[in-house]
Amino acid sequence: MIYLDNSATTQPYPEVLASFQKAAEQYFANPSSIHSLGSEVERLLDRSRKQAASLLHVDTNEVIFTSGGTEGNNMAVKGVALQHQNRGKHLITTSIEHPSVMEAFRALESLGFEVTYIDVNRDGLVDAEAVMNAVRPDTILVSVMSVNNELGSIQPIKDIGRKLKAHPKIHFHVDHVQGLGKIDLPMNEWGIDLCTISGHKIHGVKGTGALLVRKHVSLFPMLHGGSQEAELRAGTENLPGTVAFVKALRILKEKEQQNRDHLWKLRARLREALRDRPYCVLNSPEDGVSHITNFSIPGLKPEVVIHALGQKEIYISTKSACSSKQPDVSAVLKACNFDYDRTTSALRVSFSSQNTEEDIKQFVDALDEAVHHLQAAMR
Amino acid sequence: MIYLDNSATTQPYPEVLASFQKAAEQYFANPSSIHSLGSEVERLLDRSRKQAASLLHVDTNEVIFTSGGTEGNNMAVKGVALQHQNRGKHLITTSIEHPSVMEAFRALESLGFEVTYIDVNRDGLVDAEAVMNAVRPDTILVSVMSVNNELGSIQPIKDIGRKLKAHPKIHFHVDHVQGLGKIDLPMNEWGIDLCTISGHKIHGVKGTGALLVRKHVSLFPMLHGGSQEAELRAGTENLPGTVAFVKALRILKEKEQQNRDHLWKLRARLREALRDRPYCVLNSPEDGVSHITNFSIPGLKPEVVIHALGQKEIYISTKSACSSKQPDVSAVLKACNFDYDRTTSALRVSFSSQNTEEDIKQFVDALDEAVHHLQAAMR
Repeated sequence: MIYLDNSATTQPYPEVLASFQKAAEQYFANPSSIHSLGSEVERLLDRSRKQAASLLHVDTNEVIFTSGGTEGNNMAVKGVALQHQNRGKHLITTSIEHPSVMEAFRALESLGFEVTYIDVNRDGLVDAEAVMNAVRPDTILVSVMSVNNELGSIQPIKDIGRKLKAHPKIHFHVDHVQGLGKIDLPMNEWGIDLCTISGHKIHGVKGTGALLVRKHVSLFPMLHGGSQEAELRAGTENLPGTVAFVKALRILKEKEQQNRDHLWKLRARLREALRDRPYCVLNSPEDGVSHITNFSIPGLKPEVVIHALGQKEIYISTKSACSSKQPDVSAVLKACNFDYDRTTSALRVSFSSQNTEEDIKQFVDALDEAVHHLQAAMR
Repeated sequence: MIYLDNSATTQPYPEVLASFQKAAEQYFANPSSIHSLGSEVERLLDRSRKQAASLLHVDTNEVIFTSGGTEGNNMAVKGVALQHQNRGKHLITTSIEHPSVMEAFRALESLGFEVTYIDVNRDGLVDAEAVMNAVRPDTILVSVMSVNNELGSIQPIKDIGRKLKAHPKIHFHVDHVQGLGKIDLPMNEWGIDLCTISGHKIHGVKGTGALLVRKHVSLFPMLHGGSQEAELRAGTENLPGTVAFVKALRILKEKEQQNRDHLWKLRARLREALRDRPYCVLNSPEDGVSHITNFSIPGLKPEVVIHALGQKEIYISTKSACSSKQPDVSAVLKACNFDYDRTTSALRVSFSSQNTEEDIKQFVDALDEAVHHLQAAMR
């Protein structure tokens, strides 16, 4: 099997699953219980939070564990909007955010908020100046993803964050689900108030993640109830999931530079190969992230190509998994102004550090064969 | 170890953890991915949903998997309120709901909703007539728990539900987290529109649960994004957690009657023993649920008793874990009009079917010794 759909989800590391299993067996008590079994679990949770904070370069109490990226994004976007609506009801985001950000904004529109969606250029990039030009006196939130999940475009977060420092009352949220481990995102230096990350995109288990919330930020919680997670996210803590998530974070950080170098090599190899193929056209920008390569094969339906590759146990995807049940057109590519042929024939290869150059060779060979076969059938 | 804090959380069954492990290893793909790995996971998810539905006597598309009880309760309460606010902004609940319901209502009050909190009697019971008397033309939601988590009182859900049938536009939500497996709750027959259940209270894994949503009910989602979970709960599905949850449900249902009989026996034994102790007074009503027994030892701080028992590896609790970090007074007991001495000295024993009569004997002996020792120290 050659798995090249790592932006949709990754295979959990065996060490991560072992951590989960051990924690679930041995530390099953409720950390809020005041008996010693509960306290033991609470200490383990505290230790996990401290480790996560240290790996992510934030303070311990700035790590709010969640059930994943979608929850983190909803919690940040709606949490800021509902909490600070008395100061203004204008929000800013981009036209190529992940559905969990985009739909959260649409939901807020239905509750009376006004949202400005900033357009992107052909490379899927938002212009920091355009973001700043949209700022109004009643703006309370700007949300921009660090890395686009379909194209891999890396947004100018540093630039936007620094410019927003002149507007200390505007909250800056970054959906960093695709960027975690791939690019640096120094929250403090870049003026980021809220940052979403997810466990299952970095070989952790599903149902885990965190929202990093800077100390000065107050939010309207999505989940009210007990006083868990600094009263920002009620509910019995998923200790085994959290331990597994932090384990995945640790592995990520241990080999970060080595993995990044490896991914850049894979990317160069893949882009080179695809550029040589007359049947396909690259959509991902030259300076995109290392692990995502998006390209179109105009004239071929992507699901047919995916099916043909699947028969050889090679797995790639179309657009994001979260919108892949929607028909045909990629909203992201459309926002980049690609023509219809390209927006309806896009494929995405996404690496993990476990992929090899041999995987790419086999993928490209299989792609050649599939396209040749399919094009012949269409003639 | 004698674990008697099963209302806070339960130890996952080994079979449940094995299911989790297997699913996490072998079915790691994203069910929204359109390649065959994804489809395989999607089929497993569909199968799990179908099994859950059959075990819970609802339709397959009425099972919405969540990250747990707190999410289910928030999703139901806020989801109805935000979705149907154009029809009215009045909501009804009781004064002894779990914090995840209570605080959701408080949050809605801050957003302009009006909430009537129905009082309970000495047994922690709400009067169905009192609920009905609170109904107004602008009432859109009634939320009542099936079993109180501190006292074990069983609310007259059947009665309330049947009376509410005369008001088809009012949604009826039941927090069934403590009742699942212990008492029956036929949703259709009793006119229940939404029902919250949780995985980790039935020997499943943490971070899992479901909100049962009857077909005709529309909700404002808490988590917007992808179209997962019938567009009611976005986010990559936690397939391993769901498989583990459904496994726990299956085990629960297989031995349901046998376990219920066993729990009633344990309860009778414990109540008999506690009634014989002059130092303690029972708080749980005679006709409460089988697995929860609440009692006070006036004059002794509950945490001191818990600590003394903990040294013998016997684990019981004070009030609910979700409010146990709050100081002193049990809000539930206070709502039942118990005096200060009793509301500040309450202890809760909560069984699972794994407990034995010998556990109870050892617990009562240890309690005698601890109380004797502590009372002697205070003289």
